[in-house]
Amino acid sequence: MPLKVVLVGAGNTGYHLGKHLSEHAELLQVFSRTEEKAQRLSLLTGVPYTTSLDELNPNAGIYLLAIHDDGIASVAGQLCEMGFSGKLVCHTSGATPVSIFEPSGLKRYGVFYPLQTFSVGRQPDFEQIPFIVEANNPEDSTILDELARVFTKKIYHLSDEKRAALHLAAVFVNNFTNHLFGAGKKILDAESLPFELLLPLINETAAKLQLAGPAIMQTGPAKRGDLKTIARHLAYLKKYPELQELYNTLTKSIQQGL
Amino acid sequence: MPLKVVLVGAGNTGYHLGKHLSEHAELLQVFSRTEEKAQRLSLLTGVPYTTSLDELNPNAGIYLLAIHDDGIASVAGQLCEMGFSGKLVCHTSGATPVSIFEPSGLKRYGVFYPLQTFSVGRQPDFEQIPFIVEANNPEDSTILDELARVFTKKIYHLSDEKRAALHLAAVFVNNFTNHLFGAGKKILDAESLPFELLLPLINETAAKLQLAGPAIMQTGPAKRGDLKTIARHLAYLKKYPELQELYNTLTKSIQQGL
Repeated sequence: MPLKVVLVGAGNTGYHLGKHLSEHAELLQVFSRTEEKAQRLSLLTGVPYTTSLDELNPNAGIYLLAIHDDGIASVAGQLCEMGFSGKLVCHTSGATPVSIFEPSGLKRYGVFYPLQTFSVGRQPDFEQIPFIVEANNPEDSTILDELARVFTKKIYHLSDEKRAALHLAAVFVNNFTNHLFGAGKKILDAESLPFELLLPLINETAAKLQLAGPAIMQTGPAKRGDLKTIARHLAYLKKYPELQELYNTLTKSIQQGL
Repeated sequence: MPLKVVLVGAGNTGYHLGKHLSEHAELLQVFSRTEEKAQRLSLLTGVPYTTSLDELNPNAGIYLLAIHDDGIASVAGQLCEMGFSGKLVCHTSGATPVSIFEPSGLKRYGVFYPLQTFSVGRQPDFEQIPFIVEANNPEDSTILDELARVFTKKIYHLSDEKRAALHLAAVFVNNFTNHLFGAGKKILDAESLPFELLLPLINETAAKLQLAGPAIMQTGPAKRGDLKTIARHLAYLKKYPELQELYNTLTKSIQQGL
């Protein structure tokens, strides 16, 4: 069975899902409200685009919503009004429950969540990426498995609750750590030191996790109880109250243990 | 000129510095108060070890202290008393000023700081690691450069202040991020989900920094102002007040910008 897909959304996630689908499945059409994004993905994939939901191609089996969480309910409602209530509609969000589709009137819906951070300029290695899929009926669950296999063998069926917890954990290890990389960069910028100095350390910190859990890898002044160094760090950070608060909260948390 | 080194300390950093020095320079002896650590490195390198500072080999040109920050002043004082005041003594700490050696009576001293996180079980790629070196006189600065070139071409001369700021930045991007990896693991453990699910995301988050700065890479609910998702996350974290505090502090900080 060919997987005919219409992709709604051409941001970072939509861009890469669309690119891969156009190469390994059947991508019929791309939608984005932003013409520039729609056009960019259309040019890359060779499939037509539209910036109007009303012009969505009705011949696909799956409508994949790679849009902001806040827009899912509204787009689902519009799709139902357009007579797509028998189509399988999925969102790609980690945080949004499947039940968001209930009020829309759609009969077949689900989740197709790739657990990764996407940027347009960087090619993802989909084989390494876990996909969390879920549908509101067993037949569509099988269809989503098939669609996920176009990307990866790492396919997981998780409840809304477990997927939301996984997404929360992802926020800790991705959004929050990236913010701390920013904090490090801010300090180096202030000292006219290049951020490149920190890259080997950042890479090694991530790479070590492949071998052992983070608890074993924890080092540093907070873990050692090196109060002199902590005091020196806090004194330096007087210039940056917001970094001082981050430092205090994280140091206290390391000292208390998780 | 051969670089004859005695290594004082055989923990994570000492272990790898000693291993590399024994292969690429002249390591005369290893000291650790912990016989097991001294013996382990001695067996690996084939050089003698001692657990008594009094038995330190007096024939080295450089005495490298790979010990806790709190022990540097005391060991330096002992070395001076032992008649090593004409020897070059260096610590390997990022956080400790060179001036810590002044009260010891030593005449030649400096810093030899490899900016990396070391674990005994994991082989470091020294060529990628920046070494920050500094001595209290130009001749010894040249000697430390030569010693650093045994490890890497990435050699930096930084003032105490800049090195301390760099070390602080390293705490943000290594110790603190590792703690956040632990927070992610705690959430997954509670849901009986494998930590491996997060590894591709963690690796990609680090790898992306090679291409662009952390500010451009920042995504997630805090950055998007997705208040519904943030509220759901905080509700989930009611079970874990310490994670809730981390979440709140980091989310607020992302929203305020750095």
